[in-house]
Amino acid sequence: MKKLAKILFEKNLTIACAESCTGGFLSHLLTNIPGSSRYFKGSIICYSNQIKNEFLKVPKKILKEKGAVSLEVAKITAQNIKKLFRTHIGISTTGVAGPSALENKPVGTIFIGIAFKNKTKVIHLKLKGDRIKIKEKASKKALEFLYNLIK
Amino acid sequence: MKKLAKILFEKNLTIACAESCTGGFLSHLLTNIPGSSRYFKGSIICYSNQIKNEFLKVPKKILKEKGAVSLEVAKITAQNIKKLFRTHIGISTTGVAGPSALENKPVGTIFIGIAFKNKTKVIHLKLKGDRIKIKEKASKKALEFLYNLIK
Repeated sequence: MKKLAKILFEKNLTIACAESCTGGFLSHLLTNIPGSSRYFKGSIICYSNQIKNEFLKVPKKILKEKGAVSLEVAKITAQNIKKLFRTHIGISTTGVAGPSALENKPVGTIFIGIAFKNKTKVIHLKLKGDRIKIKEKASKKALEFLYNLIK
Repeated sequence: MKKLAKILFEKNLTIACAESCTGGFLSHLLTNIPGSSRYFKGSIICYSNQIKNEFLKVPKKILKEKGAVSLEVAKITAQNIKKLFRTHIGISTTGVAGPSALENKPVGTIFIGIAFKNKTKVIHLKLKGDRIKIKEKASKKALEFLYNLIK
């Protein structure tokens, strides 16, 4: 996280998150750094589909047909948090932290989206571990993914 | 947290957070419990004043006159997240996690707001420790405060 913060400071980049499965842990890591308010504007934790639809403008049709845990939802929420919070970077997480499967997707299925400049990239991970470990691993992977994209 | 989750499950109560100084850690604790999506709808992490004003409807006049770290901001953000996310409970944090003082308020100054039924209560804490410890202590105090209110 320190290496990533250094790049964000140096390049004067701002960031916002749309977190689902990570439930706040990704924002927690981003705000552990002194001075993080220079790059971090805020997040929407969109745990329920109601919040994904009303605040992050994910169409109900997508939630119904693709599911909340999908590449499409990761893509739309990353793009829309960037737009709503007017930041350079929007980062999203959606997945199954467990202990139960969701939408027929197994525990550990994770999608991470990053909207930066005019592109949005999504990665699909399959993680192992208990609920808390999956939240932690997904958050750290999101930061690694971002670091490699902007370094 | 387990005792609190039990009450939320038993009473079918839903919750949303407006987190400033805790930066996501409060939501992380709430979502560590399996099945937490039954009570937790989501949060807005309103780190910047722009987000406090645009999304949580804190008047600019309040931010200017009272400061972001104030009883008034804790009260308004708790009330408004409850209303926006249509939950039974709205819980907010605002404070100075450090390492530097903010708005002439010392490190460790924390306000926690809870909107429940037609009342909003705010507590004012003075915590000690480094940045991460203050985020953790403030989040745990918020959960304790909530537990005592709804138990």
